[in-house]
Amino acid sequence: MATKARKKKIQLDNTRLVLAALEEGPIDRIREILADLHPADIATILESLPPEQRHPVWAMVKPEVAGEVLLEVSEAVRQDLIHEMDGAELVLAARALDIDDIADLFADLSDEVIAEILFALNKQDRQRLDAVLSYPEDTAGGLMNVDTVTVRENITLEVVLRYLRQRGDLPEHTNSLFVVDRSDRLLGILPLDKLLTASPSLRVAHIMERVKASFTALTSDREVAEAFERYNLITAPVVDENGRLLGRITVDDVVDVIREEADREILNLVGLREEEDLFSSVWQSVRNRWMWLAINLVTALIASRVIGLFESSIEKLVALAALMPIVAGIGGNSGNQTITMIVRALALGQLKAESIRQLFLKEIGVSLINGLMWGGLLGGVSWLLYQNLPLAVVMTAAMTLNLLLASVAGVGIPYLRQKLGRDPALGSSVMITAITDSGGFFIFLGLATLFLL
Amino acid sequence: MATKARKKKIQLDNTRLVLAALEEGPIDRIREILADLHPADIATILESLPPEQRHPVWAMVKPEVAGEVLLEVSEAVRQDLIHEMDGAELVLAARALDIDDIADLFADLSDEVIAEILFALNKQDRQRLDAVLSYPEDTAGGLMNVDTVTVRENITLEVVLRYLRQRGDLPEHTNSLFVVDRSDRLLGILPLDKLLTASPSLRVAHIMERVKASFTALTSDREVAEAFERYNLITAPVVDENGRLLGRITVDDVVDVIREEADREILNLVGLREEEDLFSSVWQSVRNRWMWLAINLVTALIASRVIGLFESSIEKLVALAALMPIVAGIGGNSGNQTITMIVRALALGQLKAESIRQLFLKEIGVSLINGLMWGGLLGGVSWLLYQNLPLAVVMTAAMTLNLLLASVAGVGIPYLRQKLGRDPALGSSVMITAITDSGGFFIFLGLATLFLL
Repeated sequence: MATKARKKKIQLDNTRLVLAALEEGPIDRIREILADLHPADIATILESLPPEQRHPVWAMVKPEVAGEVLLEVSEAVRQDLIHEMDGAELVLAARALDIDDIADLFADLSDEVIAEILFALNKQDRQRLDAVLSYPEDTAGGLMNVDTVTVRENITLEVVLRYLRQRGDLPEHTNSLFVVDRSDRLLGILPLDKLLTASPSLRVAHIMERVKASFTALTSDREVAEAFERYNLITAPVVDENGRLLGRITVDDVVDVIREEADREILNLVGLREEEDLFSSVWQSVRNRWMWLAINLVTALIASRVIGLFESSIEKLVALAALMPIVAGIGGNSGNQTITMIVRALALGQLKAESIRQLFLKEIGVSLINGLMWGGLLGGVSWLLYQNLPLAVVMTAAMTLNLLLASVAGVGIPYLRQKLGRDPALGSSVMITAITDSGGFFIFLGLATLFLL
Repeated sequence: MATKARKKKIQLDNTRLVLAALEEGPIDRIREILADLHPADIATILESLPPEQRHPVWAMVKPEVAGEVLLEVSEAVRQDLIHEMDGAELVLAARALDIDDIADLFADLSDEVIAEILFALNKQDRQRLDAVLSYPEDTAGGLMNVDTVTVRENITLEVVLRYLRQRGDLPEHTNSLFVVDRSDRLLGILPLDKLLTASPSLRVAHIMERVKASFTALTSDREVAEAFERYNLITAPVVDENGRLLGRITVDDVVDVIREEADREILNLVGLREEEDLFSSVWQSVRNRWMWLAINLVTALIASRVIGLFESSIEKLVALAALMPIVAGIGGNSGNQTITMIVRALALGQLKAESIRQLFLKEIGVSLINGLMWGGLLGGVSWLLYQNLPLAVVMTAAMTLNLLLASVAGVGIPYLRQKLGRDPALGSSVMITAITDSGGFFIFLGLATLFLL
C-alpha cells in the first residue's frame, strides 16, 4: 500500500514540535515540519488536536500525502477531515493512493466525489477498483491487494529473473510471486528468496511451494487475522471459488485488523459503540455512550426493586443496608473475572463442549474457596462492627452463595450464547453484573429475613 | 523462526478430529493425525484438553515439533507440558529450534537442562544464544533474530546474486539483506525485490535504501510493536549504540507482541494477573485472582462504612436503601466509559497537556446531559414508586452530581497517573468504581439527610 510517502523519515513523538510551532508560527515552519513527517505521524498529530487547531494544520498538509493520512486516522476524525475538503482536493488525495486504499475511502465519500474519482482512473484501474469494491470491507476480498505478480510453472527461473528485470519495480511488500495456470488458477507460490538461491536453469514447477494458506474473497477478516497470527504468515493469496487468483493479503493490513479487533473488544467491555474522536462534540459523545447507560439503568432498577421487596427487613435491621452492596459488588467482580476468561478461551478456540462440565466444577471450587475465605473475613468484620453473630454468619453464607451464582453464570452465559450462535463477548459484562447485583441483594436480604428477623 | 514443521498442512479447527480419535482410539490413528498438523494447531488442541487427556496426547507429539509446540502454547500450559518431559526429551525438542526460539524457552527450563542444551550446541550457535540471552525478553534484543544476511556496499549486485546462490537457503522471513561496513555498522538495506529488478551491474551502494526505522537492543517490545504498526514494517534491524548490526526483528514476532499487549490490557481490566490455563488447578486460579478481589473488598468496605454513617437516615426513610445502588452503579458505568477512552487516547499518544482542559469541559458537558436526562427519568420512576416528590428531586440531583464526579475522576485519574510516570491503565477501573460507589452513596444519602429528614 501507500508508496512514496513511506520513504519519509520516521520520528516517534514529533507532535510536540508541531504544537510548539503552532503556538509561535511562522506558518512556513509548520509546513516544513509537516513535509518531513510520515503520514502516520501526521495522523496522530491531527487526532490529538481539537478541531479549531486541527483544521488549519490539515489545510497545510500536502495533497499528495492527504490520502494516506485519511487512511491512518480514526473513523471519527476521518469524517471531520473529509468534511473540510472540497471535491477537487478529495480527487487529488485519492489519486495518489493504491487501488485498494481508494476503495477503503469510498465509504466516507459522497457519490459526486466517487464519480469524479472513477472518471479520473484508467480502464484497468477502474476494473480493479470494481473488483475490490464488490466485497464487503470486513472480508478477505475487502482487505486484499489486486496487484499480484504471476508466473507460469513451465518456465525456468532464468526467464522469471529476466521478466522481473524488464518489469522494474514490484508492488510494495511483495515477498513471493504466484504460480498460476492458463486460466489464472493458483498452483503454487514462488518465494523471492527461493528465486534468488536456486539454480536459474530449474523450472518454476520444480521449486515452487505448496500454498500453505489461502482465503476465498468472502472469508471474514477476523478469520484471516487468526490464520496470519497462528501460522506466522507474511502474505497469503485470495482465490475465488474455482481457485482462480484474485489478489493477495499482506501482514501489514492484517496487523491493523488485529489492533482494531482488540480495541473493539475493550471498548465493548465498557459499552462504547466505537472509538470516539477525543474532541467530538458533547452531543456525539452522549449518543456513542447512551445504549449501555440505558441498559444499565434497567438492570439497576431491577436490583432496586429486589431491595424494595425487603424494605421491612431493612427497617428492622438497618445494618443490612450497609452490608448488602459488599455482597453484590464482590460477586460482580468475581463473575467478571470468570466470564472474561471463558470468553477469551472461546475466542481462541480452546473451549470444547466436552470440557464444559470440568470447567463448571473448577469454577465452583474456586468460588467456594473464595466465598469461605473472603466471606469469612467479611463475616468477621461485620461481627466487629455490629456485634451480631447471626448477622456475621448470614453475611458469610450470602457471599459464598453469590460467588457460586457468579461462577455458574460466568461459565454458563458465554457458553450458551456461543451455542446459540451469538457473540459470547457482547454485553456479557452487563449481564453478569445484573445477575450478581440482583442475585446478591436477594440472597443476602432473603437469608437475613429468614434467619435474623 | 521455526522451520521444517511450518510446511505442514494448515487446517483450522481440527481439534474435533483429535478429540474423536481420543475417544475411540486406536493410538496409531491419533499419531497419524498429529503428524499431519501444524505445531500451532497442536498447541491449540493441547490447550483445550484437561491434563488427564493432555498428557497422553503430548507424549504422542513427535520430538522434532515438540519445541515449536512449546513456543506456541500459553505460559501456564507450557509449564505443565515441560513438567511432563525428561531432560533428554527437552534437549531434543530445543535442538530442533532456531537460536532465538531456544532463548525464549530458557525461562521455563531447569539449570541442568539448560547446561545440556548449551553443551549440545556448536561454538557459533552458543555465542549467538549468549547474545540473545543478554537482553531481557521484552526488548528488541530479546525479540530479534540473529541470523541476518549482510553484504558490503562496494560490490555489484551480480556478486550478491552469485553469493546468495552459493549460500543456498536464506533464513526464514528474509525480505531484505543488510548493507554493513567493515566493522559491521549498518549502512542501508537491500530489499530482495530491488535485487531482482535492478541491473546486476549496479553497485549495492547505488540501490540500497536508507534505514527507515531501526531499534537499539534495549528498546521495549511495546515501542517496537508501535513502530511496526504505525509504519507498516515487515522487518527492521536491531543495532548497538555504535550502529553495529545485532540482528533483525520480523513482523510475525511483533504480531505476537501486539496480541499479548491487547490480551494483557483486557485481563488487567478485570484484575486477572495473567492468562490462566483453562484447566489449571482450583488453587492456582484462586492465587491468580485474589489480588483484585482483596482490593475490591477494601473499597466495598469503605463504601459500606459511608452507608453506615447514614443508618439513622435509612431507618427513617427506607426507600433510600433501595435507591442508593442505582446512583452508585450508573456513576460507575459512566466513569468507566470515560476512563477507558482517556486511557486509550494516552496509549495512542493522542492526549497532550494542552488539550486536557478542553477534555474536562467536554466530559463535564456529557455528564451534565446524562445526569439531567437519566437522573430526571429515574427521579420520575422513584416518584411513581414512592409518591414522594422531594425524594425524586434528590434522586435526580444525586445522579447528576455523581456523574459529574465520575467524569472529573475519569479524566483526572489516568492523566495524573501518566504525569507521575505511572501506567495510566493499571487498576484504573477499580479506582473509578471505588470513587463513584463511595461518592454516590455519600452524595445521595447526604442530600437526603439534608433535605428530606
